[in-house]
Amino acid sequence: MNKINIPETAEFLKNCEDVHILIHRSPDGDCIGAGYSLQAVLKSLGKRAKVLCADEIPERFDFLKPEKSEKPEEDFIAKTIISVDVADTKLLGSLEEIYSGKIQLCIDHHVSNKCYAETLLLEENASATCEILYQLYRYMHIKFTEQIAKCLFTGMSTDTGCFKFENTTPEAHIFTAELMREFPDIRYGLINRQMFDVKSPSRIKAEMLMLSQMEYYFNNQCTIVWATLELCQKHQVDEKDMEGLTSLSLQPEGVEVGITFREREPNVFKVSMRSAKDVNVSEICQIFGGGGHVKAAGCLLKGSPDEVRKKVLQAVEKAL
Amino acid sequence: MNKINIPETAEFLKNCEDVHILIHRSPDGDCIGAGYSLQAVLKSLGKRAKVLCADEIPERFDFLKPEKSEKPEEDFIAKTIISVDVADTKLLGSLEEIYSGKIQLCIDHHVSNKCYAETLLLEENASATCEILYQLYRYMHIKFTEQIAKCLFTGMSTDTGCFKFENTTPEAHIFTAELMREFPDIRYGLINRQMFDVKSPSRIKAEMLMLSQMEYYFNNQCTIVWATLELCQKHQVDEKDMEGLTSLSLQPEGVEVGITFREREPNVFKVSMRSAKDVNVSEICQIFGGGGHVKAAGCLLKGSPDEVRKKVLQAVEKAL
Repeated sequence: MNKINIPETAEFLKNCEDVHILIHRSPDGDCIGAGYSLQAVLKSLGKRAKVLCADEIPERFDFLKPEKSEKPEEDFIAKTIISVDVADTKLLGSLEEIYSGKIQLCIDHHVSNKCYAETLLLEENASATCEILYQLYRYMHIKFTEQIAKCLFTGMSTDTGCFKFENTTPEAHIFTAELMREFPDIRYGLINRQMFDVKSPSRIKAEMLMLSQMEYYFNNQCTIVWATLELCQKHQVDEKDMEGLTSLSLQPEGVEVGITFREREPNVFKVSMRSAKDVNVSEICQIFGGGGHVKAAGCLLKGSPDEVRKKVLQAVEKAL
Repeated sequence: MNKINIPETAEFLKNCEDVHILIHRSPDGDCIGAGYSLQAVLKSLGKRAKVLCADEIPERFDFLKPEKSEKPEEDFIAKTIISVDVADTKLLGSLEEIYSGKIQLCIDHHVSNKCYAETLLLEENASATCEILYQLYRYMHIKFTEQIAKCLFTGMSTDTGCFKFENTTPEAHIFTAELMREFPDIRYGLINRQMFDVKSPSRIKAEMLMLSQMEYYFNNQCTIVWATLELCQKHQVDEKDMEGLTSLSLQPEGVEVGITFREREPNVFKVSMRSAKDVNVSEICQIFGGGGHVKAAGCLLKGSPDEVRKKVLQAVEKAL
């Protein structure tokens, strides 16, 4: 693994050909914005490029996709494989088997990046991978389009919780302002509304359900929210309504660590951990083979609810 | 009424003395940040200044107040009266009777400003009064302190819904970035968490209550959320838990206009109207003697719930 900088990454992109761009499973605004913007940039340089994801891209991100051209996309065999916003090949899901060990470039901002690619552009202080890409594209004198602007804005906005979290950099604000000035017709507020505020009736139901069953520990410094298969089935709440529910766990005042358990299959839990202030949840999740950011991390745990709760609470208690 | 610009306002502030700064009732982050920052600026210029509000400043804004000095604040009679973020003297509440007709300067960003002051610095396109003040203080070469920075940041952040709403300007982003760079030790993310995310147990209860009783009209394009005295008493929800609940009404997908009725006293309703996209709710509220912004406005209505609902729905139906 070779760490590279922005000029070296620009050089790589200029010289690459026939690119498969990999983004992580359970795709979010940042990896989707990063993937589609990189595809557009590479195409503008005359290259073939496509975005691959193990999971389906949720419909609400459709506005970031390239306009459908009249001729169908031609398929091609990758000569270059680039991952964006992927900290660990495990996060490639079903694509891991195909691409692991073959990734030539990774562009990422996760402090927990596993350095699995041949070359790595890692900016741990960037609030989003799209923040790094903004600088990279500017360095390369790429002509921005509305689609690229929407991709980069959405990546920065979603990964900062709409500029709310502590990971928000001055650069995220400045690049956003520059995009707003260059593309005043994009309705940024409507994108934010779609990303953060709009909820389906079943999502609203899911939130009420999770909130009403929230558990409190350690003098209310720690909360647990459960989305078990049983609960979801009973109340007809869909898996896709669970996305982003992790922020609920930090709502009550005084909470330092909020934990969400989503049951993926019987007794297999996706654990999402959020820190309100000073606890490093990435360290806690690393104990269980996971990782992420200081204030937002995750891991996968197997066991009954009682077992996984006990394990996680023990680790949290030490950190508090 | 005389409209003035930033240099003229700077001149006014340099020459004024013994200032009472008025902010609106039901004070929010913008008027509180505007008021306390202006007080700090005037004091730094060697003047006496204090902030007055008809309602108590909520505790969570305590971090914006000036540090308590050892000697108690001396009281003084105003020679100068300035209002900030007050679109209409009606919004002064109990202060209206004392100060109405005597206000020499108003600094505001509300398109609905009633032009009641002798001189008016109005920037309708600014996302917050604090955004105007940022430019004014920079023009005056004021030395910023952490307190001033926190005030201005909080004003811009809260009035834009943390840079989420369509009123967010590139300037709000750029000024925020400048504050972040000048004062890197301020924990902006924690301020945002306090302003937007932290909820008391009773607030969480209130939200669930309002959501579960939401009414839908006009093919789900319009929602109504009720906070009647009866409902609040029955579920032991406090008046102060209702602040900011207006955003709930826009949560369901497809909603264009969200309306919140808060019963202030029996059959007297504070109506808050929010627009998701293109409906001008300021115009609708003006029909009932209210006003505000294009996408966030309010008015006061008297009558039974059925009566006020009917009135408002008729006006909304025309606008849709």
